[in-house]
Amino acid sequence: MTLSYDGTHFSGWQVQPNATSIQALTENALTTALRCQTHLVGAGRTDAGVHAKAQVAHFSTEVSFSIEKLLASLNGLLPRDIRILNIEEMPADFHARYSAKSKTYRYYLSLTPVQLPLRRLYALHLPYPLDISLLKKGCAELVGTHDFTSFSNEAHRGSAARNPVRTLKTLELIEGEEEIYLEFEADGFLYKMVRNITGTLLEIARGKLPLETLQEILHAKDRKRAGPAASAHGLILHAIDYQ
Amino acid sequence: MTLSYDGTHFSGWQVQPNATSIQALTENALTTALRCQTHLVGAGRTDAGVHAKAQVAHFSTEVSFSIEKLLASLNGLLPRDIRILNIEEMPADFHARYSAKSKTYRYYLSLTPVQLPLRRLYALHLPYPLDISLLKKGCAELVGTHDFTSFSNEAHRGSAARNPVRTLKTLELIEGEEEIYLEFEADGFLYKMVRNITGTLLEIARGKLPLETLQEILHAKDRKRAGPAASAHGLILHAIDYQ
Repeated sequence: MTLSYDGTHFSGWQVQPNATSIQALTENALTTALRCQTHLVGAGRTDAGVHAKAQVAHFSTEVSFSIEKLLASLNGLLPRDIRILNIEEMPADFHARYSAKSKTYRYYLSLTPVQLPLRRLYALHLPYPLDISLLKKGCAELVGTHDFTSFSNEAHRGSAARNPVRTLKTLELIEGEEEIYLEFEADGFLYKMVRNITGTLLEIARGKLPLETLQEILHAKDRKRAGPAASAHGLILHAIDYQ
Repeated sequence: MTLSYDGTHFSGWQVQPNATSIQALTENALTTALRCQTHLVGAGRTDAGVHAKAQVAHFSTEVSFSIEKLLASLNGLLPRDIRILNIEEMPADFHARYSAKSKTYRYYLSLTPVQLPLRRLYALHLPYPLDISLLKKGCAELVGTHDFTSFSNEAHRGSAARNPVRTLKTLELIEGEEEIYLEFEADGFLYKMVRNITGTLLEIARGKLPLETLQEILHAKDRKRAGPAASAHGLILHAIDYQ
């Protein structure tokens, strides 16, 4: 299934004790609609406050159902800030996370002097001047296959043993009138990698960190060398590609 | 001053008993910041749920103040869904409403099969097919100087005696990938005029009302002849022009 959500009021994708997660609400709706306890596996574990235009999740069930009716039931059961856009039957070996060939995230930055209320929940407001050409140069330096340990919080999630090498196919700045966004496409992302890269690139674009240190940070393989994570609310899981 | 707001949680622009209006909150902030009871006059009275990208309001005061400091104080006092974008000193005869040469509203329509959560508060979701060419023809028929009584709820506001003739300079459909919007520019708008026109045009685009009836509706000068008002949340006061 493809899901879209406004992450503002949730504790993130993943089920957590004493918190409202998107996964838990969707699993509950699925269990109610199918009248059978059903587990949902998401492609990307978005953090609290992070949004999704198109998250993907899979479930398997022996219950037979009409896809059209299930879609309507789920959207009837879920709050309006979570919508199921689409449900498809897949081969038995399909896995929302492992079958994914690439994921695309967008990080939205609002450049107006005063924050626009209609964008306050969906774009990070930057009231200070940014050097856009430095931001673009920083983006170009990070494209490619690298060990992204310096931009990862895997250690905080107890998953530091994971292979930290990822291929960033795209890291591009797209400019609008009042907003710009960074588009990240990779075969996979380490924990908080997009927000940590964004936070570091913003330090460079503000002149707080020289562009030259970007390669040093990358080679140091040390999270402490990079800048702070950019706030969750500017981040959107844009698409997941299975080819 | 130019204000921007997310109308979702307010009872509209105008002060009302037992309700939270944008005018009241901004007047209170102004009174606190200037330490003097101050009245605010808005250019357009947006309804409950209607948003503003750029509303304009004026006030007069004998208190002297720094514009920059007042702007910062007001934004410090106001909730994040109301922002003051700009404050300017104007000639004594300036009036936010009477000096306005034209106002621009946009009505956003979302055309995805399932409503996208990130747009649920800012665009009317239309899950049924629309005939876009009919919608465009309907727009073209309404441009110009007309008595817009059939598209006005002035009678419900007790202001039916107002001159109901307005000049609609622009009524255009702008198409995006997942959304379209109607842009309305006029010398002024009657009460609920934009929402009533939008609701009627949607009836035409859905095939519920023949295009030919549009002229009849206009000439009937009878609110009962036109379609229902489109929902408030898709409407944004986009700009006010003083030339």
